[in-house]
Amino acid sequence: MKKKYRHVAAVHSKPRTSCLSHDSQVSPSFLGFRNLMVIVLVVGNLRLMIENFKKYGVLICIRCHDYRRQDLILGAALYFIIPCHLFLAYIVELVAAQQAQASLRAGKKRDGTATPGGSYIASDEERRKFQSTWILIAWIHGINVSLCLLITSVVVYFFIHHPLIGTLSEVHAIIVWLKTASYAFTNRDLRHAYLHPSRREEDALPEIYSECPYPKNITLGNLTYFWWAPTLVYQPVYPRTKKIRWVFVIKRMSEVFGLNAFMWIASAQYAAPVLRNSLDKMASLDLPSILERLMKLSTISLVIWLAGFFALFQSFLNALAEVMKFGDREFYTDWWNSPSVGVYWRTWNKPVYQFMKRHVFSPLIGRGWSSGAASIAVFVFSGVLHELLVGIPTHNIIGAAFIGMVAQLPLIAITAPLEKMEGINGRIIGNCIFWISFTLIGQPLAALLYFFAWQAKYGTVSKQLVKA
Amino acid sequence: MKKKYRHVAAVHSKPRTSCLSHDSQVSPSFLGFRNLMVIVLVVGNLRLMIENFKKYGVLICIRCHDYRRQDLILGAALYFIIPCHLFLAYIVELVAAQQAQASLRAGKKRDGTATPGGSYIASDEERRKFQSTWILIAWIHGINVSLCLLITSVVVYFFIHHPLIGTLSEVHAIIVWLKTASYAFTNRDLRHAYLHPSRREEDALPEIYSECPYPKNITLGNLTYFWWAPTLVYQPVYPRTKKIRWVFVIKRMSEVFGLNAFMWIASAQYAAPVLRNSLDKMASLDLPSILERLMKLSTISLVIWLAGFFALFQSFLNALAEVMKFGDREFYTDWWNSPSVGVYWRTWNKPVYQFMKRHVFSPLIGRGWSSGAASIAVFVFSGVLHELLVGIPTHNIIGAAFIGMVAQLPLIAITAPLEKMEGINGRIIGNCIFWISFTLIGQPLAALLYFFAWQAKYGTVSKQLVKA
Repeated sequence: MKKKYRHVAAVHSKPRTSCLSHDSQVSPSFLGFRNLMVIVLVVGNLRLMIENFKKYGVLICIRCHDYRRQDLILGAALYFIIPCHLFLAYIVELVAAQQAQASLRAGKKRDGTATPGGSYIASDEERRKFQSTWILIAWIHGINVSLCLLITSVVVYFFIHHPLIGTLSEVHAIIVWLKTASYAFTNRDLRHAYLHPSRREEDALPEIYSECPYPKNITLGNLTYFWWAPTLVYQPVYPRTKKIRWVFVIKRMSEVFGLNAFMWIASAQYAAPVLRNSLDKMASLDLPSILERLMKLSTISLVIWLAGFFALFQSFLNALAEVMKFGDREFYTDWWNSPSVGVYWRTWNKPVYQFMKRHVFSPLIGRGWSSGAASIAVFVFSGVLHELLVGIPTHNIIGAAFIGMVAQLPLIAITAPLEKMEGINGRIIGNCIFWISFTLIGQPLAALLYFFAWQAKYGTVSKQLVKA
Repeated sequence: MKKKYRHVAAVHSKPRTSCLSHDSQVSPSFLGFRNLMVIVLVVGNLRLMIENFKKYGVLICIRCHDYRRQDLILGAALYFIIPCHLFLAYIVELVAAQQAQASLRAGKKRDGTATPGGSYIASDEERRKFQSTWILIAWIHGINVSLCLLITSVVVYFFIHHPLIGTLSEVHAIIVWLKTASYAFTNRDLRHAYLHPSRREEDALPEIYSECPYPKNITLGNLTYFWWAPTLVYQPVYPRTKKIRWVFVIKRMSEVFGLNAFMWIASAQYAAPVLRNSLDKMASLDLPSILERLMKLSTISLVIWLAGFFALFQSFLNALAEVMKFGDREFYTDWWNSPSVGVYWRTWNKPVYQFMKRHVFSPLIGRGWSSGAASIAVFVFSGVLHELLVGIPTHNIIGAAFIGMVAQLPLIAITAPLEKMEGINGRIIGNCIFWISFTLIGQPLAALLYFFAWQAKYGTVSKQLVKA
């Protein structure tokens, strides 16, 4: 029904508050501002892309890269030599296993009193013998594994100029180094348990290993599986999947390919000019300008890092796991929500974290070290590996990667209480400290330092730069 | 108890999925990435601030602004003249109210049959008389109110050079224009109800008005309250608060002061250089460059707009409402979450929305217009007001503001279905369309166009630009 009076409605009929006022009972949702942030980020970076294109044109150029013939040959040679050390370790373990079998048989024959469960009580003399044998085996393993890293590092540092080939070789050597160490340590304990079984429940071997008891695991097939499995931690038996989903593998490998192309374009077109522009600022120690360059670099280095993380830990390792029918795909958990720096290091790279925990941290704790001291040991060790990984291929062992890793320790200590704070605020502050220290300072500063050191030593990375 | 074997723990004991895989049962939280976005936005803009400072130095300069003596005098004169039209409207209403009282008394005396409730059934002749009187009153009001807008517009367009003084005068005139219109329309209906009361329930006047029935509301005090009240809609009675919290007023006014200083700095230091840099691109119609400038401008115009919104609708209107003991503080609701462009226009500026709904939209619907046609009328009317508001003080009636307002109609039509879509996605898309159309295209494009037109006409805004 039509109203007679159209201009008299009481628009203001009761007291109300503005929704942003403190007087307001409920605080409004700010979801729209999240959408706005995404839009502003996209637009801001699209604009920088237009600016970049107008300033530099297209910088992507395949032919411009200087892959020397010598680099390619040496890289290929290293690719085949490095895994050999894993097989040398196998031979050592094979001999040790045969000796252990012989010694067990001899022992049984000598006193003829095997306990009902087949277990056997070792004498003090036998314990000493095991220990001295282990020291010999440890030395052989140590020499073998260190040779692997030493040869690779020397070749990369002195003879492979291109940093990408060098980095790939060095990563390969470190992975094999860690795998061999895990193989040796694990088999040492398995052998010990085989020779001198303990009846204490807490010493029991994991249930899953019973499928393949020592020394049955010392076979070439078992080692080959470990060689390719997406883990740094040796186990005689792993959880396995039933079949390979090839469509899954193809999808993941397409992601790897696409993301690598993306990272290459992003580096060449966006990161390289910023790095080059910052050289004179670095040389003249112009601090505000260095800060400005660092900020500009942080976004692009973050994007490249996120793409690299996804390509390696999600796409590549899942594809590899699928092909290897490897069941445990937890290569990372939600590290981006880390409420502290410590949680980040425990979650972003599970293979390395698992190695460090099983073979460095836990054994040190077992020897009576405090958890703080064991953490320091882990980060110092990790710092050495990082420095090898970055310093050797860039031919500049300047220690920035090492210092970067060791600097995580105070950050972990500072942010640890935030994680336990009540309410959400502590976790948000911890998360922001993690992002800022990692994204804004850590990554781009390291990139700047190593790039500067490289330029100081060689003047240029590619032919293109000489032209520019 | 210490474990004997330290290197044998089964790290991989059961099948697990990567948390970003589609295989994963639960999708992880991405809250950390929200924090990262905020950090990247802050850092990205801090970097642009450093870049800006290195390029331009400090651009903020009070003396450089060209406030002519004539502008100041005319601005002050308009400030006192404009409200006079509201008081002319009061005199018209006072005469009308006295006539109505006299006519009611004469009518009662003539037929002597007042109904029990004091109501009175009007004859056809009396209705015609009311209508013809109303047409006369409407003409007087119309001439009065249009003179207010015409005088201000002519003075601002031809004699006030500085766009800020001009804009303030024009805003003032439009507010008084709207308030007078509301005063006239509302009193017309109240007078009608007074002379010819209806017994139908849906014609009943709002409960809250019973405190001050017509013609008791036609007083100078009542009008003065409406003059200063933070609303464009006249009611004889408003919901009121009991006391003035002066601390609240001081806080809100400090916000107004701080935000205005912020907007001034942001405009002078960040928006002005972008606008100036875009002039030659606009002149040569270099589209990619105009797009790049538009994108750069969008962030700073958004920030200024948000600050301006908060300063006006939250801080200033709340302070004014507190001083006026005005109870209804809902000057806006959470427009930033708008799932469609229509919702935005209904929520961001409640005083204007309430005026348009009560005095334009609803009466047209009451006359049988369709809701679409009434919406078109509202936006065309609003477009005219916007063009007056921007075009007159910048001395360029180029129609961009008008077109911008009318262009909202197709946007509203496009986004309306998104609002009703099931699930959150439709609302997110609608929200993004709102933000993009408003932040990225609407605001900065309008700023660019009027700045370009200004420069084409005058060459420069301030003395400083002549020097540059």
